[in-house]
Amino acid sequence: MAGGKKGSPSRSGVFNKPVDPLTEAFTQSISFDRVLCKYDIAGSIAHAKMLGKVGLIKRSEEETILRGLAEIQSDYDEGKINFSAEYEDIHMNVEKALEERIGETAGKLHTARSRNDQIALDERLWLRDELDEIARLIGNVQDALLDLATEYANDAMPGYTHLQRAQPVSCGHYLLAYVEMFARDKDRMSDARRRANVLPLGACALAGTSLPIDRQYVAAILGFDGVTRNSMDTTADRDYLLDFAYAMSVCSLHLSRMSEDFILYSTTEFGLLEIDDAFCTGSSIMPQKRNPDILELIRGKTGRSIALLSHYLILVKGLPLTYNRDFQEDKELLFETTLQFKGCLQIIEAVLRNLRFRRDRMADACELGYMDATALAEHLVRRGIPFRQAHHVAGKLVNLAVQKGVKLADLEIEELQSVHALLGEETRNVLGGKGVIGAYASEGSANPKFVLNAIEDWRSRLRGERGEPDPKAKRRPSKN
Amino acid sequence: MAGGKKGSPSRSGVFNKPVDPLTEAFTQSISFDRVLCKYDIAGSIAHAKMLGKVGLIKRSEEETILRGLAEIQSDYDEGKINFSAEYEDIHMNVEKALEERIGETAGKLHTARSRNDQIALDERLWLRDELDEIARLIGNVQDALLDLATEYANDAMPGYTHLQRAQPVSCGHYLLAYVEMFARDKDRMSDARRRANVLPLGACALAGTSLPIDRQYVAAILGFDGVTRNSMDTTADRDYLLDFAYAMSVCSLHLSRMSEDFILYSTTEFGLLEIDDAFCTGSSIMPQKRNPDILELIRGKTGRSIALLSHYLILVKGLPLTYNRDFQEDKELLFETTLQFKGCLQIIEAVLRNLRFRRDRMADACELGYMDATALAEHLVRRGIPFRQAHHVAGKLVNLAVQKGVKLADLEIEELQSVHALLGEETRNVLGGKGVIGAYASEGSANPKFVLNAIEDWRSRLRGERGEPDPKAKRRPSKN
Amino acid sequence: MAGGKKGSPSRSGVFNKPVDPLTEAFTQSISFDRVLCKYDIAGSIAHAKMLGKVGLIKRSEEETILRGLAEIQSDYDEGKINFSAEYEDIHMNVEKALEERIGETAGKLHTARSRNDQIALDERLWLRDELDEIARLIGNVQDALLDLATEYANDAMPGYTHLQRAQPVSCGHYLLAYVEMFARDKDRMSDARRRANVLPLGACALAGTSLPIDRQYVAAILGFDGVTRNSMDTTADRDYLLDFAYAMSVCSLHLSRMSEDFILYSTTEFGLLEIDDAFCTGSSIMPQKRNPDILELIRGKTGRSIALLSHYLILVKGLPLTYNRDFQEDKELLFETTLQFKGCLQIIEAVLRNLRFRRDRMADACELGYMDATALAEHLVRRGIPFRQAHHVAGKLVNLAVQKGVKLADLEIEELQSVHALLGEETRNVLGGKGVIGAYASEGSANPKFVLNAIEDWRSRLRGERGEPDPKAKRRPSKN
Amino acid sequence: MAGGKKGSPSRSGVFNKPVDPLTEAFTQSISFDRVLCKYDIAGSIAHAKMLGKVGLIKRSEEETILRGLAEIQSDYDEGKINFSAEYEDIHMNVEKALEERIGETAGKLHTARSRNDQIALDERLWLRDELDEIARLIGNVQDALLDLATEYANDAMPGYTHLQRAQPVSCGHYLLAYVEMFARDKDRMSDARRRANVLPLGACALAGTSLPIDRQYVAAILGFDGVTRNSMDTTADRDYLLDFAYAMSVCSLHLSRMSEDFILYSTTEFGLLEIDDAFCTGSSIMPQKRNPDILELIRGKTGRSIALLSHYLILVKGLPLTYNRDFQEDKELLFETTLQFKGCLQIIEAVLRNLRFRRDRMADACELGYMDATALAEHLVRRGIPFRQAHHVAGKLVNLAVQKGVKLADLEIEELQSVHALLGEETRNVLGGKGVIGAYASEGSANPKFVLNAIEDWRSRLRGERGEPDPKAKRRPSKN
Repeated sequence: MAGGKKGSPSRSGVFNKPVDPLTEAFTQSISFDRVLCKYDIAGSIAHAKMLGKVGLIKRSEEETILRGLAEIQSDYDEGKINFSAEYEDIHMNVEKALEERIGETAGKLHTARSRNDQIALDERLWLRDELDEIARLIGNVQDALLDLATEYANDAMPGYTHLQRAQPVSCGHYLLAYVEMFARDKDRMSDARRRANVLPLGACALAGTSLPIDRQYVAAILGFDGVTRNSMDTTADRDYLLDFAYAMSVCSLHLSRMSEDFILYSTTEFGLLEIDDAFCTGSSIMPQKRNPDILELIRGKTGRSIALLSHYLILVKGLPLTYNRDFQEDKELLFETTLQFKGCLQIIEAVLRNLRFRRDRMADACELGYMDATALAEHLVRRGIPFRQAHHVAGKLVNLAVQKGVKLADLEIEELQSVHALLGEETRNVLGGKGVIGAYASEGSANPKFVLNAIEDWRSRLRGERGEPDPKAKRRPSKN
Repeated sequence: MAGGKKGSPSRSGVFNKPVDPLTEAFTQSISFDRVLCKYDIAGSIAHAKMLGKVGLIKRSEEETILRGLAEIQSDYDEGKINFSAEYEDIHMNVEKALEERIGETAGKLHTARSRNDQIALDERLWLRDELDEIARLIGNVQDALLDLATEYANDAMPGYTHLQRAQPVSCGHYLLAYVEMFARDKDRMSDARRRANVLPLGACALAGTSLPIDRQYVAAILGFDGVTRNSMDTTADRDYLLDFAYAMSVCSLHLSRMSEDFILYSTTEFGLLEIDDAFCTGSSIMPQKRNPDILELIRGKTGRSIALLSHYLILVKGLPLTYNRDFQEDKELLFETTLQFKGCLQIIEAVLRNLRFRRDRMADACELGYMDATALAEHLVRRGIPFRQAHHVAGKLVNLAVQKGVKLADLEIEELQSVHALLGEETRNVLGGKGVIGAYASEGSANPKFVLNAIEDWRSRLRGERGEPDPKAKRRPSKN
Repeated sequence: MAGGKKGSPSRSGVFNKPVDPLTEAFTQSISFDRVLCKYDIAGSIAHAKMLGKVGLIKRSEEETILRGLAEIQSDYDEGKINFSAEYEDIHMNVEKALEERIGETAGKLHTARSRNDQIALDERLWLRDELDEIARLIGNVQDALLDLATEYANDAMPGYTHLQRAQPVSCGHYLLAYVEMFARDKDRMSDARRRANVLPLGACALAGTSLPIDRQYVAAILGFDGVTRNSMDTTADRDYLLDFAYAMSVCSLHLSRMSEDFILYSTTEFGLLEIDDAFCTGSSIMPQKRNPDILELIRGKTGRSIALLSHYLILVKGLPLTYNRDFQEDKELLFETTLQFKGCLQIIEAVLRNLRFRRDRMADACELGYMDATALAEHLVRRGIPFRQAHHVAGKLVNLAVQKGVKLADLEIEELQSVHALLGEETRNVLGGKGVIGAYASEGSANPKFVLNAIEDWRSRLRGERGEPDPKAKRRPSKN
Repeated sequence: MAGGKKGSPSRSGVFNKPVDPLTEAFTQSISFDRVLCKYDIAGSIAHAKMLGKVGLIKRSEEETILRGLAEIQSDYDEGKINFSAEYEDIHMNVEKALEERIGETAGKLHTARSRNDQIALDERLWLRDELDEIARLIGNVQDALLDLATEYANDAMPGYTHLQRAQPVSCGHYLLAYVEMFARDKDRMSDARRRANVLPLGACALAGTSLPIDRQYVAAILGFDGVTRNSMDTTADRDYLLDFAYAMSVCSLHLSRMSEDFILYSTTEFGLLEIDDAFCTGSSIMPQKRNPDILELIRGKTGRSIALLSHYLILVKGLPLTYNRDFQEDKELLFETTLQFKGCLQIIEAVLRNLRFRRDRMADACELGYMDATALAEHLVRRGIPFRQAHHVAGKLVNLAVQKGVKLADLEIEELQSVHALLGEETRNVLGGKGVIGAYASEGSANPKFVLNAIEDWRSRLRGERGEPDPKAKRRPSKN
């Protein structure tokens, strides 16, 4: 990352010619690392304060620098900064802008600092913000799922294995499966944040510095949990980006599975749900056509996060310590991928908030296919019949029902009892979609009662994550 | 995962013909999932105890089953079990073995259980053991690095950026960079373990069960932190394997970087270290040839873990809920990759324990290339000179030294002072490899003093991870 | 690849200690490269003949060597060779076996040869055979598709875009889409073969040899198209494996898409096809359940080929020239993946040969959803109406039909003409599934007539690929 | 790809509400597919000509449309077209622009065409141009390598295996190894072009059309080798992009290996080459520092092409036939990656054209390490000594030389003969770097003579690829 430009101090005297224009164009990063501007400034502010505190610059110099940086931030917010490829990257562009505003004192800011640790700082600050926003967006998706799950908690729908109808489940239960996945995704984001949230600044080029800097002070200003422990590892490390790319990849997989399910369920053939008109596209002459384009795009964008992860895995493989310019390649794809990933989270929330499950179709689907046969067998087990035998009885009844062309619930009581004496009127309660889902008794099962409890728990957890008060807790004082 | 065999109860009555032999060969998994045998048995033991506790089977039946399972485990340990593709997978093979030993009662074990949740259980139990062993192996590698770092803490070596000599660092500091990386790897393994360590059993096929099972009891027996919360997510989930493959991938990247460094450093050209004869190969007529085959193989095996991760990412993408047979593909590559990965950790520890850095070559390398120029500039900054000016002065001195063909430390005092009056005799203390590394003052920098402290900290942390007593703590009682 | 064993000549004198047992276990490859045995022998036979021809060995020595190699091949075929990790790899094991049979003369075989070019030779010979077999297997799959396509050429089925019913197509046309994909796959395999089919032997360790070998002679014996042109590239190159892994990956993607389609089409909801009982699994109490396990496994195994490709991409990235031991990692995953890939091709052919499309369901599906609206619009365009206007008319008629709850074909002639005067009795001919597919007129369209022609063309091409005579051509002589 | 906008004809009547603004933003592609503008226009021109020819539009309408399209192209070239997300993609934007220019007639252009086949056409046209340009750029890189190889053909340098010095090679030979790799890359690009160069237009939405279009005519106008054979495959296919991404990936791997080599060779330690000042960066106070940033960036960008390939593999996996909106995700990353890839080819050519190998260092390196021992052994083999014995003799002489601390070439004649009588004065001719490389005799070996011949062959092939006349051929007529 050492400089390479005509006017750059890093070239004076040593080189016999200026860099080739191709070189400048090929090595510049300002066209994309400008995204880091506010983090670069924030880092410089903290660094300047520290330099002032430990006496490496005078308090008056510190003030001058801080004023200059504040101006740059303000100009940047108003779109007044002209970034230039001549100054290669965001660090040099900000330094140049500072020099234009405060003159030579700007040069003191670079004391005990290198672009090698500075870029690691900017990236970690950027990442922290992105992780927080993504956690919020995932929370919103979970919220939308909880609302849907509440609405459809009592509705039975077919649960699929091998894409074949297997057993009826509460539709709310089905939706909560995705809430679980997204919770793990937030957990992964949180792990990534924890590992990333240590200050790299002070590692300098690779070895630290002989100057009496105070890294803990900088860490405290910038809200880091601590400082990195080894300067060489610090400048050689991009694990924090890998962790992030991985967390996005898995979350994208979950989004791809939800998209796949919804695309299937919205076909003419399945017909279990409807995507709102505002979120699908159609065809002028095929009225039944409601193309689930958004879901297809989300499924397609899965590849983006995974592509970023692949890129990083290839990038880092076999690199010697410490900093190598290969690392400049860590940013452009990152910024674009993150943007696209957040876009997916935003729009899937909107899609969910406007989704309708088709109760009629779900109920119809539950009546076909003898999905209640397992429930019937378990009904017998509860009455003391060994499972293998109960299973056999259920099979016989299904065959009987198939021959008659009726549902299990439509078999006569006599027919039930002819196969097994312990069957009877109350057997019917566990049959049919509603009957089956109401009978599930195990923790985490697809029974609406459990689903409603789980929804309550999730709402409380999400409030906790957001630091919102518990509405029930509020009402408690009235108990007095 | 529903059965598909001739004699299988799952085919009786429904199908008009037996499966094709091609089908049996293509769908069987016993050729590789036999690895899970002991976990399958352990899971069955816990399940049987629970069935007995809640009354779904009689206490006497429970005892019979437990006795049978103990026998199978014992026979397995003695290599007496004949697994058969006819029984498709480990679950059916164990069930068959049980039936052979205890007869019909074996059939009761499958109450309130499905192969869909059973495989998830077996995999999580297996994974937990592997994660624990890997954490231990990584700890051993760190140990070996700490021993080496202790030995070479006071030796200066060139620190590289862009593979160009940049600044001298303590060799111990260089080695600790890898200790840091491996610590993050263990952290990732630990995250994976935490997320994986919840009981999936009880999710059954996908919806839970209407039978009064006690999942918390099973979780307690098997040492899980809790139970999964949603049965559909449970059978549709393979995140735990993704987390593991990812953690291995990043650790493999770290191993690849260390291998790359050591391969470079052991070339004739770099010559900074020597791999022990017992761990390299040679050529009968080129005496200088010490091929670092082991390191090359480790670097090459990086692709294995990443291949597993790629496989999983492709596998899961776009799968509808819940269980799909695609998931059977999660195991074979996993078992082989894990074995290879552990092999890398084992042998790299041995390589490290027999590695010699070449102090002569490291010292020589530090004298060339003016790697102490930055230290000289900082020396001036400490005396109040602004960094940009100090930088300029250092540059002038380097040019002077280049012209004279000497090292910075060999310039006359008068020459130093002719360029800047604040330079003098004591300037030389910060020059040369030893001088430079001794002057580093920042937290986490490459100064031997910091390195030795860091080693102490690491040893204490590793002892903590292993539950070993602190040797210093032992001596404290005398304080009383 | 230089040797590293106790007894190995490559260690004598140079090393002070034997290799560590860990080293031997970690670096051996005989546990998997034994697969290459027959190719290693074939390569040695050709090499010995060349050495004899150019006079580097005597003719009598050549004969002795050839006799010894023939014995080894014969013993290998009878399972009598004991490979040993002590001799590291297949080359050394074969050399050892030769020495045991013919004594010292065995040592002359290694003249002007290195394991670096020998392994490249073995791999290319192996690859060529595999590519030929795979081309044959893909041809079989195409054959099975052509048979199915012939059977269902005249049946209309829904064609999907966005998984929504779009337009009716000939079922045969749908099946031919896969024949096209597999043809491209064979083309890729053929490209891979062409690039691989040059002789690497003679590149020796990396630089060629000063001995007067005749590479063209060896190439001719082994059926290569020529010899590699640059010895360093030759030993540094694994492009041929990358090409193969890529070709398998794309073919696997095609298999995954076909599996996905068939899984969907065999759901209760779509119900367009039935997988034969012999190739699916079921559930004892859910009679409708026909789990498409084989297709799911094929879809899941997609990841295998891609994992291999990922592995290679990671493996080669950033390796310096020429041979590095990393390359040993190119084999184990390759052999296993190829086996699995061929297994997929074999079983999918069997599945296809036993597949039934459900004509009733396909016909029913074509009647719903106004999939003939586009055909109606084109019908008007053929009568001179501008497309946008025709499109508008079709839209109006669809709305009318929707309101009446009927199909387009069921609208009264008066109703058709009330919307546009150019419509009439003959309009109905282009409506409905059969009508629509019969009206397609463009090259490559879904009209059964085109489909039957395409089938003929394909059969002829496949015969050509196999070198089979053209049955029509045979009959022609009688014309004379 | 069916439309989804407010004013879009595809929504009229069917939907109850307009699309959500989020939907428009999420589904638009004009922000990136505008790159395809000229190809979209070219495709439309050919389509209009065909519609006119077969009578689906009047000749006057054809002329109007062609005039309008020409205007759009001209306005586009002048930057006067305002693309709008309101019109979603390039096809609709061009259609809108046409309507603005020629009114209603614009609507006739969409006869017998769908965006599903139109996008496939645009992509294939774009791809063909890119492939041609890339082939040219790779040719330039080969040219630069040939110039370098010519310059250094007679210089010996160390050839490496395992990154250990193995045998001397001609520096030109080393460089030609890369010429070989790039030739294979062009071959892959050429394969990709061949498979891509068939006309997809006429597949329409997925099934073809009932209108009497002439696809062969369109293919001829646009320079395609033929037309696709199956409409469903045509709209479902993205193999052509996979082939391209793969070809770029392998070429990137070759670039990464060359970068790795050059980075190593330009270290202080290896010191075999110098990158020109115009193409590297430095440090103001470390005069030896010449950071090979460009090479590091090229090595880092390897991940880009592979990321694209990963993206595609994930994208296509498990997609049902035919067109799915996921495919929109095939473009954005493609355009950016291709741009970056071409940038790498351009700058590496410039780097090569300014590269200097350090003859002094190469020669010195060849004198150390007994890299001529193999040559010595082969020298004896040429005199009739069996290889294993010759090998043994060489080993003895190396040991003798090591003890004396001299090179093999510096051993006395008597010393040589004391070990083997067939050695003598002329033995020295095959020793030392120059001696060794001059003695290589096998086809494709590292002998300067072969290298110079190979260079001639390459130059002639490259001229052939470019359609340039053969300079020698020109002069021949004078021979008459």
